[in-house]
Amino acid sequence: MSRPKWIPEFDLDLSVSASGQLELAGCNLVALAKEFGTPLYVYDEAALRRRCQRYRQAFTSYEPGYEILYASKAFLPLAMAELIEQEGLGLDVMSGGELYTALKAGVSPDKIYFNGNNKSPVELAEAIDAGIRGIIVDNLLELERVSAIAKAKQVVQTVLLRINPGVEAHTHEYIKTAKLDSKFGFSLLDNSTIEAVRRVLIDQNLKLLGFHCHIGSQIFSLDSYRAAIDVMLQFAAEVRSQTGFVWKELNLGGGLGVRYVESDDPQPIESLAAQIIATVSTGCQKYSLPKPRLLLEPGRSIVGEAGLTLYTIGACKTIPGIRTYVAVDGGMTDNPRVALYQAKYSAVNASKANSVPDQVVSVAGKCCESGDMLIWDIALADPQPDDVLAVFSTGAYTYSMASNYNRLLRPAVVFCRDGRSKLVVRRQSYEDLLNCEFSLNEG
Amino acid sequence: MSRPKWIPEFDLDLSVSASGQLELAGCNLVALAKEFGTPLYVYDEAALRRRCQRYRQAFTSYEPGYEILYASKAFLPLAMAELIEQEGLGLDVMSGGELYTALKAGVSPDKIYFNGNNKSPVELAEAIDAGIRGIIVDNLLELERVSAIAKAKQVVQTVLLRINPGVEAHTHEYIKTAKLDSKFGFSLLDNSTIEAVRRVLIDQNLKLLGFHCHIGSQIFSLDSYRAAIDVMLQFAAEVRSQTGFVWKELNLGGGLGVRYVESDDPQPIESLAAQIIATVSTGCQKYSLPKPRLLLEPGRSIVGEAGLTLYTIGACKTIPGIRTYVAVDGGMTDNPRVALYQAKYSAVNASKANSVPDQVVSVAGKCCESGDMLIWDIALADPQPDDVLAVFSTGAYTYSMASNYNRLLRPAVVFCRDGRSKLVVRRQSYEDLLNCEFSLNEG
Repeated sequence: MSRPKWIPEFDLDLSVSASGQLELAGCNLVALAKEFGTPLYVYDEAALRRRCQRYRQAFTSYEPGYEILYASKAFLPLAMAELIEQEGLGLDVMSGGELYTALKAGVSPDKIYFNGNNKSPVELAEAIDAGIRGIIVDNLLELERVSAIAKAKQVVQTVLLRINPGVEAHTHEYIKTAKLDSKFGFSLLDNSTIEAVRRVLIDQNLKLLGFHCHIGSQIFSLDSYRAAIDVMLQFAAEVRSQTGFVWKELNLGGGLGVRYVESDDPQPIESLAAQIIATVSTGCQKYSLPKPRLLLEPGRSIVGEAGLTLYTIGACKTIPGIRTYVAVDGGMTDNPRVALYQAKYSAVNASKANSVPDQVVSVAGKCCESGDMLIWDIALADPQPDDVLAVFSTGAYTYSMASNYNRLLRPAVVFCRDGRSKLVVRRQSYEDLLNCEFSLNEG
Repeated sequence: MSRPKWIPEFDLDLSVSASGQLELAGCNLVALAKEFGTPLYVYDEAALRRRCQRYRQAFTSYEPGYEILYASKAFLPLAMAELIEQEGLGLDVMSGGELYTALKAGVSPDKIYFNGNNKSPVELAEAIDAGIRGIIVDNLLELERVSAIAKAKQVVQTVLLRINPGVEAHTHEYIKTAKLDSKFGFSLLDNSTIEAVRRVLIDQNLKLLGFHCHIGSQIFSLDSYRAAIDVMLQFAAEVRSQTGFVWKELNLGGGLGVRYVESDDPQPIESLAAQIIATVSTGCQKYSLPKPRLLLEPGRSIVGEAGLTLYTIGACKTIPGIRTYVAVDGGMTDNPRVALYQAKYSAVNASKANSVPDQVVSVAGKCCESGDMLIWDIALADPQPDDVLAVFSTGAYTYSMASNYNRLLRPAVVFCRDGRSKLVVRRQSYEDLLNCEFSLNEG
């Protein structure tokens, strides 16, 4: 059946069954909620793979080559790391835990880059032992630590330097500032970054590949990427003139926005690629620089729209003259983005997907905290206890940020494809909560 | 050694070793950081027990009796539930997971009350099976569900009704409103709450104990409790006149504030108790109501100041003309309160506790997110890589809200007492991260 107009258009395969229940990739979501329990994270596996492929396709024509490094922090259970590997992407990891998962999933170390403003000595040693393709060095302390560990292990570690380009991109605009106040990267305010380049170049255990920058997240304006590339080109030219070093790789980070609510208008992956390729190509000509291999770190724009969360509706409570609260069985524990960033979401009563959403309600979470709200003022079709609510575009930063606050259990994750569902993360059990905990009487 | 003046005064046993390292309850914190790794949650066990005892002591004189119900959501690993049981307190639980933990710890069901705006049917059945002392019924749907489950199991379940008193307390003031916009409890706006009372009274499987309210958190003004008690007294009198029901229990929730930074000036437990006892006693006389058994739900005011978090300092980065970032090896994963509520904390360089804190820096977390900051603009003594930073008053809502964002590992928890440390929660391992996760190739 075709999609009724009140079901927002996302990049995933939604339909409605003959009996009016919402379906994803041919799987009945009300049935999935019953089978696996709620809250439940559900992904359209084909949509995940399609977006990986679109990223690769969009950069195929770029001559010196590219690598798409999926940003692990968005969503990285083991199965997702395996999917990334199968689709031929690389991984951007931020911690020993993400590196461990990537290696478990069989991702080649040659496709792994390690990011972060404060990697521990243990993590650096793990990365160097694994022989990953690039450590993206954030600061001088880290540079010294990588050098010392590589020397002790008698290896040469390839590195990039993370640069703070003074471009800060927000959803609809960007700010260019000479003094970006950020915890990340080497500053361009003085000569210290060129000094860091020199420091790497004389080190026999380090090999410099190039530079990294990251300007923001949930970005809708491609101009911000152009602005950042301009800064990086100018910096690369300056480095060449002062040190002779010529970049081999340029990592432009992530940040492409996705649709959360109908009014969001993200740019297609293909437009991002075209903007980047054109700006880099033109700029390299201008500065007589060779075109670098391009690295991108998309996270949200691969998984965000491909996932949704199912909840079971419980208490519906009308406060006369104020609002109706519809409570669900999850909330800030499985999706802290609303409490953290005042994020907005769209949703549909999956049990009544053919019915007109004509009741304006607010969706409350289950935590004992008045701030635990999922959606303020949304129109739903006759929400009743035991109905299943589908909240869209929750594929990124939900499972990965989930907590056990109120000792609620972390939900399961299911991948759907061609009418079949696959459990890739099981729901936690009560016993799991005690997994690391000891009795006062023990030991 | 005595405490230097730059170490803020909290309700726990801090001292400085001869070599200038910070100690808690006689345990050297720099040594603990080395032994157990960082981040590390450390509690002064005697301080935890002392505050439990102060709560009990403060209400001992109150005639019809009382029960102090520790608010599990603040911090409830198994060992904490055991400590609460040993100190003779009861437990306020919010979920099946908290109930499970309480029962595992040997807490008597007769001392457990179950709160929450949307308990699931499974949780209600578990609570009724366990024979807990009170289900605090939030809404009509829940009332019907408890009734049906109790009937099916042929038991009588004791309940309280959660009332929305129209009093909303913040740190320094409170708001009294006829129309409180809250997801919690029965509204006093119309007669529906009296109807709910009638509904309970005619049910052979339910027994009404009384009423519950909760007005806010981190409260410094005791007047707000007086305002809430006034509303509850008036309501209880109205209930008696309309239905003949006379309360046996009054649960006033939690909310007493604690000190996070030096300028915070929380009220002592004893003042809270005196205010409550006086207001209830006077009010009962005024309305010719019998004095109810009093229930309190303190969480933060028991554990908040008794805990601190240790971090190891990594990169220190000065952005000329802006600020110096000092990065630590934790952040929003082990303490999301800064990102969630812009919470403020105080801290000391535990490695240099005798040195004057004369460098103003900002403490950054380790997560790949610019919002991951722990403390803005704090004076520390010469922060250097590998120094141990102690952040104070992190006993509440840190471990309980922790996530694995960036696949960082949840820290260990150590209780200190008389110079001995006891591991009550072990640090997660990389393997633990994969505990519930399956390979795409499995199944």
